Amino acid sequence: MRTAEPLHLRLLRLLRDQGAVSRAELADRLEMPRPRLLAELDRLVNAGYVAEAGLAASRGGRRSTLVELNPGLRFAAVDLGASSIDVEVVNGRLEPVIAYAEASDIRSGPKVILQRVNELLQKAKVEGAYERLDAVGIGVPGPVSFRDGVPVSPPIMPGWDRFPVRELLTREHKCPAVVDNDVNIMAIGERHGGVAHSVDDFLFVKIGTGIGCGIYLTGEVYRGTDGCAGDIGHIQVDSHGPMCSCGNVGCLEALFSGAAMAKDATVAARSGASPVLAERLAASGAVTALDVAEGAVEGDVTCIRLIRDGGRRVGGVLAGLVSFANPSMIVIGGGLAQLGHILLAEIRSVVYRRSLPLATGNLPVVLSELGPRAGVTGAAVLASDVAFGEAL
Amino acid sequence: MRTAEPLHLRLLRLLRDQGAVSRAELADRLEMPRPRLLAELDRLVNAGYVAEAGLAASRGGRRSTLVELNPGLRFAAVDLGASSIDVEVVNGRLEPVIAYAEASDIRSGPKVILQRVNELLQKAKVEGAYERLDAVGIGVPGPVSFRDGVPVSPPIMPGWDRFPVRELLTREHKCPAVVDNDVNIMAIGERHGGVAHSVDDFLFVKIGTGIGCGIYLTGEVYRGTDGCAGDIGHIQVDSHGPMCSCGNVGCLEALFSGAAMAKDATVAARSGASPVLAERLAASGAVTALDVAEGAVEGDVTCIRLIRDGGRRVGGVLAGLVSFANPSMIVIGGGLAQLGHILLAEIRSVVYRRSLPLATGNLPVVLSELGPRAGVTGAAVLASDVAFGEAL
Repeated sequence: MRTAEPLHLRLLRLLRDQGAVSRAELADRLEMPRPRLLAELDRLVNAGYVAEAGLAASRGGRRSTLVELNPGLRFAAVDLGASSIDVEVVNGRLEPVIAYAEASDIRSGPKVILQRVNELLQKAKVEGAYERLDAVGIGVPGPVSFRDGVPVSPPIMPGWDRFPVRELLTREHKCPAVVDNDVNIMAIGERHGGVAHSVDDFLFVKIGTGIGCGIYLTGEVYRGTDGCAGDIGHIQVDSHGPMCSCGNVGCLEALFSGAAMAKDATVAARSGASPVLAERLAASGAVTALDVAEGAVEGDVTCIRLIRDGGRRVGGVLAGLVSFANPSMIVIGGGLAQLGHILLAEIRSVVYRRSLPLATGNLPVVLSELGPRAGVTGAAVLASDVAFGEAL
Repeated sequence: MRTAEPLHLRLLRLLRDQGAVSRAELADRLEMPRPRLLAELDRLVNAGYVAEAGLAASRGGRRSTLVELNPGLRFAAVDLGASSIDVEVVNGRLEPVIAYAEASDIRSGPKVILQRVNELLQKAKVEGAYERLDAVGIGVPGPVSFRDGVPVSPPIMPGWDRFPVRELLTREHKCPAVVDNDVNIMAIGERHGGVAHSVDDFLFVKIGTGIGCGIYLTGEVYRGTDGCAGDIGHIQVDSHGPMCSCGNVGCLEALFSGAAMAKDATVAARSGASPVLAERLAASGAVTALDVAEGAVEGDVTCIRLIRDGGRRVGGVLAGLVSFANPSMIVIGGGLAQLGHILLAEIRSVVYRRSLPLATGNLPVVLSELGPRAGVTGAAVLASDVAFGEAL
């Protein structure tokens, strides 16, 4: 059974998303009797979550006072990718105070990686970004038990299975922590500050080293029974396709992903099918999805064909998911979103042709607005939610 | 934001699902202060929803009195199929008082079909099944706007688009009415009184004239943005497959459904590939999925192959949906569930081989327990929910 969200959580979220608000407006917005609201505000001021922010503009009669989130609130937001670490420290309104991004290999294992995360957060502290953290949110590239705060059987993260990520961060920073899947945090970020703002049912499709899907249903992230909902990279798209790292054949991400595209691009460069790619291979010794994107912009037909083939495959899977889930928006993000509008056009074309007309009548298929910041933004949202939820 | 369910709804549902309960136990079960509960009960007794039911067994001290749903409560439950009408009148505990089932053609249009539903309900009244109805629940074989109580662009229901089904039933029977998709009501029925009892995330896959999927997520039916979630019959499974009635090629239900199987069986009978089917075709002039099921039981290899081919295709689609939705159970129902364990074994085999091991570790794939009664059971649950919700 669904339970109503407590007043303090709704109140703190409203200040996070709106900034300074007058007491009078807060009572209206939260549909709350004024005495109860004022008592709650007093409590949150005393607990250090809320601060006075001067007088509001007059609405006639006595002027109401403004309140805002305590300007000293600080959350850490961490986005671990297969080959990257992104760390931000943000204030209560989730505006970045300091940010670090560096290359990294998730296969180094949890001790090395989390040690590095803690070093970066220590550096941020030394540089004056915070005195103490109010919560930490972190995304990892694999399935997560959201309840337990641990990765669960993550295929590309050796050594991380059931490693107590949340517990370690809580102990280190003496504040609540929350762990989620990297694609889920991107979806959360995009809904908070991106193109899916105010959409309750949408799919966030990340196309990067692998392919995954963040699922928002009725306004909440849907994680599935075991926390692995959205693992669409291993849906079979061609029963005669190439072997996938998972042991099956013809999986979506074996045919189209950062890794698959680099392989196909290398073949096209060597065979002479693409002069642009051949030139880049000769110059740098390797070609990547980015080279394909740039080749397509230069009009190289092989590059355009590689992108369209990939889009057709992603589109075929998404058409099925649209028939199943009937979402109101699809957002395409992740590193390969840089393949841009050629990719998007092909995905749209397949989705609109193959799904039920009723389900696609008002279905936008769009690129992520936040791009590489989607993950840390979502991690910050999760961190603030867990801190606010515990502000009892 | 989610809101808590009101006390009266929780209380009436508990009496529906548990039968007579003492006032003392109710207060415990609903975690409610006794004075508030007693006041609410008085109100519901006066409104005709709840009745006294004698004294409870002693728990020491004064004996608590039992309460139960008013024995005079009556709900009508209607399940419209492509070629059938099922009508039941049930009491407050959803036990059938009277039931009718007859062949019918949904293409006769809403006026003819709903006229027939009303005639059957009138007959039930004359036979003493009820004096007045407290609510009507109805399922139709197509997409529905649950909020508006109307079918929306239903492909196999000419004349029904936006027809005011709920309004007409409400006017005719002077009680609330609720309209849903036929597969959703089967899923609701299976959760209320079948194999999915107490499961919060499951897929109910109906394989009948067509193929559809009822989706339960976090304990509630998920209907999608336009009410057409679960339309999995038109997911493409073979880009070189046969033309489907929807205009695309290679849809799941063009390859495997009641209609597709009858066609394949006829071909097998005519070509001599199946002696059993040839005999049945000669005897009755047509063969159906039921003949294939019986042929398989008799060991006819062509019949067995037809069922396994179908199971492989359904399994392929379900494997993808398991990766996407990570449910905790899959229930197979509808007319072709009569193909039984050969079908089930093949579906299981594909799902377990193709989906992520984490998602299938504890995933039962089972046949419907309620069989042909799943639909009316779910319609009765919906009817009672809407009546209880309005018991203000």
